[in-house]
Amino acid sequence: MSISTELTARLGIKHPILAAPMAMIAGSRLVRAVGDAGGFGILGGGYGDRAWLEAETAKLTGSVKPFGIGFITWSLARQPELIDIALEARPRAVMLSFGDPVPFAPKIKAAGVLLICQVQSEEMALTALDCGADILIAQGTEAGGHGASRTTLDIMPAIIDFAAGRVPVVAAGGIADGRGLAAMMMLGASGVLMGTRFYASVEADAPEQAKQLIRAAKSGETVRGVVMDWSRKLIWPAPFTARSLSNDHLRRWSGREIELMQCADEVAVEYAAARAEGNFDIAAVFAGESVGLIHDIVPAAEIIGRIVAEAEQSLQGRRNSLSSLT
Amino acid sequence: MSISTELTARLGIKHPILAAPMAMIAGSRLVRAVGDAGGFGILGGGYGDRAWLEAETAKLTGSVKPFGIGFITWSLARQPELIDIALEARPRAVMLSFGDPVPFAPKIKAAGVLLICQVQSEEMALTALDCGADILIAQGTEAGGHGASRTTLDIMPAIIDFAAGRVPVVAAGGIADGRGLAAMMMLGASGVLMGTRFYASVEADAPEQAKQLIRAAKSGETVRGVVMDWSRKLIWPAPFTARSLSNDHLRRWSGREIELMQCADEVAVEYAAARAEGNFDIAAVFAGESVGLIHDIVPAAEIIGRIVAEAEQSLQGRRNSLSSLT
Repeated sequence: MSISTELTARLGIKHPILAAPMAMIAGSRLVRAVGDAGGFGILGGGYGDRAWLEAETAKLTGSVKPFGIGFITWSLARQPELIDIALEARPRAVMLSFGDPVPFAPKIKAAGVLLICQVQSEEMALTALDCGADILIAQGTEAGGHGASRTTLDIMPAIIDFAAGRVPVVAAGGIADGRGLAAMMMLGASGVLMGTRFYASVEADAPEQAKQLIRAAKSGETVRGVVMDWSRKLIWPAPFTARSLSNDHLRRWSGREIELMQCADEVAVEYAAARAEGNFDIAAVFAGESVGLIHDIVPAAEIIGRIVAEAEQSLQGRRNSLSSLT
Repeated sequence: MSISTELTARLGIKHPILAAPMAMIAGSRLVRAVGDAGGFGILGGGYGDRAWLEAETAKLTGSVKPFGIGFITWSLARQPELIDIALEARPRAVMLSFGDPVPFAPKIKAAGVLLICQVQSEEMALTALDCGADILIAQGTEAGGHGASRTTLDIMPAIIDFAAGRVPVVAAGGIADGRGLAAMMMLGASGVLMGTRFYASVEADAPEQAKQLIRAAKSGETVRGVVMDWSRKLIWPAPFTARSLSNDHLRRWSGREIELMQCADEVAVEYAAARAEGNFDIAAVFAGESVGLIHDIVPAAEIIGRIVAEAEQSLQGRRNSLSSLT
């Protein structure tokens, strides 16, 4: 089975499912597994760790299946040379999120690589289209990790209407099953990008305990804010904040951000130690609102197969209910 | 054309579209127009103005088309006798939102009237089902007026899974067109409840200027918070806050809620005056995130006809893309 869209054609993939470039969690292992299953894996270049990027891209170079490489754009701007390492790996696409894509677009396009831009507003979509984005990802606040405040149900049709058919638009934020894929297709999406669902996959480069926390978390147990960034002395540009599983550290500091900033040095030491020892009562597990839909840790191929089958079932089910159109 | 679901069968309506009981804005005129067009209009009983309720229900009594009456439950609890006025009007359903439905459920059920409960969490859904709710409405934070924090894309599948087929579930929050109806059906919704879209209808009992502000507002120009309630000296129980169009008053007080509370008397006088004179730089226009999808003020019948046609088109469109299932 497969569902063909403009996105699948453009990326040369079988299923309209993208795995998000979760920083260092979406390593070559996950990217390869997603690609082998007919989806599109995107390496999580994140803040730009050169050694990691070189090692992981080396494992992907010459891959038979198309794949992507993603960056946090404002961080990439501090080490622009990393884009060359990415392009040398011959990805099908580079995905830029959270920052100005303009300085990088010409080089990406000149290399014959597709430019995917993740956007959270019409203004960002305008910038992306103006610099030649081939695919837009409209990200809602439901998403795990970094994002902004508008919901997927708000931003998706807004970006669809704004793009007006010029490029395929992919939905991100809050999607973890086939119902979500089918729903987003109804809104006009050409596919979906999922992070959290693939975090809880066998191939994600994340501690088993973090995966288990996502599996166990219920809907409504994530929080978006600045606490987890400030605890790492990471100051993100507005309008971006991060969503993670609620934990002791978040409960302690949410609503006390000013105080947190005042004792940032102390908290940063505590946070780094917790992170090193895998203490997720303090360290963040970045995850989206879709945690409530995730009940197991399975191979990426199983995730993709299941979602495609479920989406088809939703679409078929309504095909039947359409027969009751009178 | 019509789309049949368990909801349309249960309510005896043609289209799976409910018009929200916007307090005093959804008067008998809108309720009747929605019913005549094959949807389900719900009278906005709101905080319970006895004279208004008597006058409006009188205009609906004996209506050929089924209709509903809605209340803010925590406010109804202060004037429980209003439920009798509602039931005497022989509605098809009473809709209870924002509070404990248990004290009212037996009387509603005993009158042979369907009980619709709007919920924002699994706990509320449990209470509603336990007291015999016939229909659940899962409301996301996108909704205009009062609501809670979880998004429609989060709460909808959560409540669908929780209800496990026992009752039809209706989606509310962020829906204003046929794409939204089709998307929610993919998530398993039996229909949708829309407020803001019907606010900007000819038949809504609201100032023309407020309707025009909704028409002109862009996506992303609404804010959820407590400012508009506190400015009226209305203290709502947690977890409920209200979403309205952004305006000068909101920009002035958002983030300064403690100060607002400290000069509540003064602000309340200013707010009441603004409301009386239709000054929406200060007074609230309660509206949801779907404002960006609303570009005109048209009769309710046109809204319903358009949404059904568009939803059918979305479903049909994907029926075609399904032919590319391989």
